[in-house]
Amino acid sequence: MLNFSYYNPARIVFGAGTIKEVGVLASAYGKKVLFHYGGGSIKKNGVYDQVIHSLKESGLEIIELPGAVPNPRLALVKEGIEVCKREKIDFILAVGGGSAIDSAKAISFGAKLRDGEDIWEDYYMRGDYNIREAIPLGVVLTIPAAGSESSTGSVITDWDKNLKRAVNSETIIPKFAIMDPETNYSLPAYQTGCGISDILAHLFERYFTTEKHNDLSDRLLESAMRNIIAYGPLALKHPSDYRYRAEIMWTGTIAHNNLLDQGRVGDWASHDIEHEISGIYDLAHGAGLSIVFPAWMKYVYKKHIDRFVQFATRVWDVDLTYDDKETMVEVAIEKLENFYKSIGMPIRLSDVNIGDENIRQMAENAFLGRTKLGSFETFNADDVEKILRLAL
Amino acid sequence: MLNFSYYNPARIVFGAGTIKEVGVLASAYGKKVLFHYGGGSIKKNGVYDQVIHSLKESGLEIIELPGAVPNPRLALVKEGIEVCKREKIDFILAVGGGSAIDSAKAISFGAKLRDGEDIWEDYYMRGDYNIREAIPLGVVLTIPAAGSESSTGSVITDWDKNLKRAVNSETIIPKFAIMDPETNYSLPAYQTGCGISDILAHLFERYFTTEKHNDLSDRLLESAMRNIIAYGPLALKHPSDYRYRAEIMWTGTIAHNNLLDQGRVGDWASHDIEHEISGIYDLAHGAGLSIVFPAWMKYVYKKHIDRFVQFATRVWDVDLTYDDKETMVEVAIEKLENFYKSIGMPIRLSDVNIGDENIRQMAENAFLGRTKLGSFETFNADDVEKILRLAL
Repeated sequence: MLNFSYYNPARIVFGAGTIKEVGVLASAYGKKVLFHYGGGSIKKNGVYDQVIHSLKESGLEIIELPGAVPNPRLALVKEGIEVCKREKIDFILAVGGGSAIDSAKAISFGAKLRDGEDIWEDYYMRGDYNIREAIPLGVVLTIPAAGSESSTGSVITDWDKNLKRAVNSETIIPKFAIMDPETNYSLPAYQTGCGISDILAHLFERYFTTEKHNDLSDRLLESAMRNIIAYGPLALKHPSDYRYRAEIMWTGTIAHNNLLDQGRVGDWASHDIEHEISGIYDLAHGAGLSIVFPAWMKYVYKKHIDRFVQFATRVWDVDLTYDDKETMVEVAIEKLENFYKSIGMPIRLSDVNIGDENIRQMAENAFLGRTKLGSFETFNADDVEKILRLAL
Repeated sequence: MLNFSYYNPARIVFGAGTIKEVGVLASAYGKKVLFHYGGGSIKKNGVYDQVIHSLKESGLEIIELPGAVPNPRLALVKEGIEVCKREKIDFILAVGGGSAIDSAKAISFGAKLRDGEDIWEDYYMRGDYNIREAIPLGVVLTIPAAGSESSTGSVITDWDKNLKRAVNSETIIPKFAIMDPETNYSLPAYQTGCGISDILAHLFERYFTTEKHNDLSDRLLESAMRNIIAYGPLALKHPSDYRYRAEIMWTGTIAHNNLLDQGRVGDWASHDIEHEISGIYDLAHGAGLSIVFPAWMKYVYKKHIDRFVQFATRVWDVDLTYDDKETMVEVAIEKLENFYKSIGMPIRLSDVNIGDENIRQMAENAFLGRTKLGSFETFNADDVEKILRLAL
């Protein structure tokens, strides 16, 4: 187990009817709120009205910035930064899923950069940034998936360059996250499936580590995996059942608040490879992950057979004879693929009509702005190409 | 799942050699530090010297308050409060286990009470207190057990009245907890066993809830139980093996930082009953818990058979035929008793030479300052007496 320092001061306010608390929570940080959200969905499901009502009731001044989209855009971030500076915003409220939150996080620290600093070149495209300061940020989460509501991360796409990159810092952990599972009832099945896939991926990235003797984290991760595997299909079958939506939503936070990966280094190669796919094709992140993970597992498992046998037995209940470990793991990967199918996710690039036309390009793009990819197993562009070909 | 609000801003600094960071961490809160600890053990194992060195290196002024003991005393708390007021203390550093930390927590808010308020009568003995303010507090944990290093709780004993009572508040969560598993190598086996028992008890209290449909927390709790059951005996067998000490220490924090009981109401009857035993006999808390829990389980399991069957199967791998559920649970309780024995803990009052002489007294004392006991199952004094008799 590696030494670690863990700190997560996000307040989680969870449950039916909790959105009405947003005004009181936000008013601790000032008077002028940038209300950042996506498109029409929060207007259709009533969340927009609830938020506006609560903010006004607390006497807050609201500046709206709609337009956050999946794979959030650098251009909108830059617009938000200008609004914050011009309007002297005290607090940013992101309402939606990972896209709105990640975009809001970028705005929150982008508005505090020094003159001459560029948020994209000096932060997202570098490894050695240090985010010193940010406008305080809160969240009303309506799509469980990214885990960004209490995470250190923000992922942004520069569509001029087809590049998707992340930053991480304690400074941009939201001050609070309001999570009402009832807001998920109206999510389309595909979006629910993508969220489930993303949550599972966050657990996988932390689970596949070369660090030994960190069994508590292993067990907690396995538990969270089992929970999402059990309740994901039920949430899809019964979209307005509070119990199942609540299980998914809370697991999504636990999967990514970093508590479950202390004392180890996660992998994140599959995330980075997926970012190259959705950076070109604008595929939903969760749908890209269900394509990449089985291919990644097939590419790496033989070198890490014991870890994959643990995964097969503890997560997938594979109890074939241990003297044929490779078969055990292959059965587990097949179970994973069947799980993805059961939640309506693609498992091959061909399932989403992507061929091999950009494979080399994606493999090479993955190394722009970074020199290595992966930790559990470290790759060069040829490896990434091979993994993408396994996913065809 | 119940609605909840979760907030835990304690920074956990974990690993070998981390004590040297205490000076820098503490210096964020001022210049004058009350250094609160127990007796000789931290002087023998070198922790005292490391702490003093680091605090001095950061230029901090140190006032020492030694003497914290198991089942920490109200009298010492009152002394600490006077020292804080007289010396205008900026920061309190507790070094040791739950006793030093709980005592320091009491001092931290006791020093900020309004004129005329009494820390015992107006806080520990009441249900409706509101802790508004406290001197910031940090921890160097040397005994994994109480989980107080990142919890909201503080348990204090008034030895004039033989009463042991708790308060809970976010206000007294430590700002940081430094946890070096190497400091545990020198713990006596009995104290290690008591810690393991206490950690397991914190998981049990959260697990036994009447709240349904909160499966993520169930699974995470079961994982943590399995981890402590697996590594507890190994830590006793190999007291200087870092891996095992680290598993125990980190599980101890996870067991009690409240993350694993969101959306439910825990039980805590066994803790309250145990407090009556150790309030009279000054038994170690962990040793009292290993006596109370099997008796409590035997007393309540028939009314909650499904929950106990889940406990038997998921935690203890009992897979007897499900049409004889009571036998399944009895086997699980026997496995629990065998586990306690394997870590050197008593499982009956007679194992620690306690007879029935004070049983009625303890049962009645349990209701001083409170009207109900337990939540999973609610008890009156007769119930408590019966449970204690089952433990004879």
